[in-house]
Amino acid sequence: RAHLADGYAQAMVCNSGNANTCNADGIDVANEMCRLVAAAAGVPEDDVIVASTGVIGQPLPMEPIARAMPGLAAALSADGAQAAAEAIMTTDLRVKQIAVEADLGGVTARIGAMAKGSGMIQPNMATMLCFVTTDAAISPSMLHKALFSAVDETFNMVSVDGDTSTNDMVAIMASGLAGNAPIDAEGPDFAAFASALRYVLEALAREVARDGEGATKLITCRVTGAPDQAGARAVAKAVVNSPLVKTMMFGADANSGRIMCAIGYAPSDFAVDRVEVRLASRAGEIAVCRDGFGLPFNEAEAKKILLEKDIDVHIALNQGTFGAVAWGCDLTYDYVKINGDYRS
Amino acid sequence: RAHLADGYAQAMVCNSGNANTCNADGIDVANEMCRLVAAAAGVPEDDVIVASTGVIGQPLPMEPIARAMPGLAAALSADGAQAAAEAIMTTDLRVKQIAVEADLGGVTARIGAMAKGSGMIQPNMATMLCFVTTDAAISPSMLHKALFSAVDETFNMVSVDGDTSTNDMVAIMASGLAGNAPIDAEGPDFAAFASALRYVLEALAREVARDGEGATKLITCRVTGAPDQAGARAVAKAVVNSPLVKTMMFGADANSGRIMCAIGYAPSDFAVDRVEVRLASRAGEIAVCRDGFGLPFNEAEAKKILLEKDIDVHIALNQGTFGAVAWGCDLTYDYVKINGDYRS
Repeated sequence: RAHLADGYAQAMVCNSGNANTCNADGIDVANEMCRLVAAAAGVPEDDVIVASTGVIGQPLPMEPIARAMPGLAAALSADGAQAAAEAIMTTDLRVKQIAVEADLGGVTARIGAMAKGSGMIQPNMATMLCFVTTDAAISPSMLHKALFSAVDETFNMVSVDGDTSTNDMVAIMASGLAGNAPIDAEGPDFAAFASALRYVLEALAREVARDGEGATKLITCRVTGAPDQAGARAVAKAVVNSPLVKTMMFGADANSGRIMCAIGYAPSDFAVDRVEVRLASRAGEIAVCRDGFGLPFNEAEAKKILLEKDIDVHIALNQGTFGAVAWGCDLTYDYVKINGDYRS
Repeated sequence: RAHLADGYAQAMVCNSGNANTCNADGIDVANEMCRLVAAAAGVPEDDVIVASTGVIGQPLPMEPIARAMPGLAAALSADGAQAAAEAIMTTDLRVKQIAVEADLGGVTARIGAMAKGSGMIQPNMATMLCFVTTDAAISPSMLHKALFSAVDETFNMVSVDGDTSTNDMVAIMASGLAGNAPIDAEGPDFAAFASALRYVLEALAREVARDGEGATKLITCRVTGAPDQAGARAVAKAVVNSPLVKTMMFGADANSGRIMCAIGYAPSDFAVDRVEVRLASRAGEIAVCRDGFGLPFNEAEAKKILLEKDIDVHIALNQGTFGAVAWGCDLTYDYVKINGDYRS
């Protein structure tokens, strides 16, 4: 945070395997990592951002990091993203990367990003790390604005297990090398940049949910017709957070009462007697709730829909104009297995 | 609720298998159940309390209930508690019953209770049903006071899975047949009654946690030294709610950073740098955190402690005089199995 205070940074360093938190020497170790990067990469120490992810409460030894740093700095290259994206994985099964181009007033700029995260993703993006770079020319304050707005609708709407972590971070650096007219206020260029950034983060958010620890399915919950924004978000997140909805998705058992139950306990005020719920996947779509009450439905059809890997839960509250989307995953035997013996 | 409004009731009726909620005819069905009990048992309809537990959003057919009611009423007996306690079970594996005697000014009164509940127990006692009877003479308002105070420290401090249900209830009926001087104010008799009731509910709360869906262990989290009551409760519940603490208990893996992490994200203000954590069971006790930092400990000893079925997590915040106890269980493969296909 101290190194981000002036809005500028030039390097990011990350280790996995140890979260460097709840340790007496944690801050010293983080500073030492920045010093090592500064020395090896030739950038000011306070322009280095540091991230750690892994086991909590165990001291992080500096020796292997110090030993590796010169080699890491020497190996920096334009096509090194894959190695970095692999290195930050912990219980992730898939590398999470994406790059897009955006037209900023006739000039093409690029946004590239990598993320890691597959457990403890709640309530706001923890335990996730995401590193974004762009060659767009944009001021720190507008970059901050675009990032926060995008994070709020993407990473902050992902849940894997309802647990929260000590360590999370999304950081973005802009080099300005694209040569676009610098963005320092709202306008078409800012809108184009913000839209591209949101696309990037949404794609990664979906991948984080899909790669949730032990997950076999991506659950997308779309809420419409909410009386306010907070209510739309609360309902969407309650559904993807519910252990019983998550286990029912794993079992492909259309126990739709559990979805109504989660909608009902979402911390928001709305009339339950207008709620409609539909389940959908590429295998079809069925309505399971109307006017707040369960509907009879064809069990075989429901099973077919829920056996797919991408399941959509559509919730129409029918009492306003606000909407939200949240992403989650199923809860499986493998989640228990992975987390029953994480350290070994 | 309507039938409880005057503070008096004479009968309780409960069905399992269907929660009678999110149904268009739910209120009518509940009223019809009360009418059937009133007719069969010869009590006023508005002195009947009704409870349902099971699948959400599927209509509850009245025919089997109507058919069975005369037989049920005819079979009422002083030793029928066991059959009733078994009948209210859903995914419970154990019957949950207890009875105690209390000395109320030289007169012996009795309190008996049965409960069901093993999943969706969060944040406040859902999905639990508990029926308590006593022969003590006590006014409705003092009975209400004793019950709410006891529930707050017992059933409201249990978590099985962080999910919340549509249906829960704790109800108590007092007949006055013990012949004690009626309790209608604070005093030694009220204190004795309240203490006995708290004992009864705590015993059942522990059994609900121990019998959590798929659980193999009872986790008791004791917090001391909190700066306020709400903080003590928040910390205790955060720890027993954490999926990662729960899976680590299942795996008997002393990943104590996860406990510190849950303490840290509890919604409460306190200084983390005074926190001490100890793990204990009948196999021993070890300190895993002091002054907010992880301590090195003997892994073999920790494993031995965590392989027991009753695990205590002692958390000393060391900055106040408030404490709280919460009960939970581990998260296991069987939780996923039970809930992946609950309806079949």
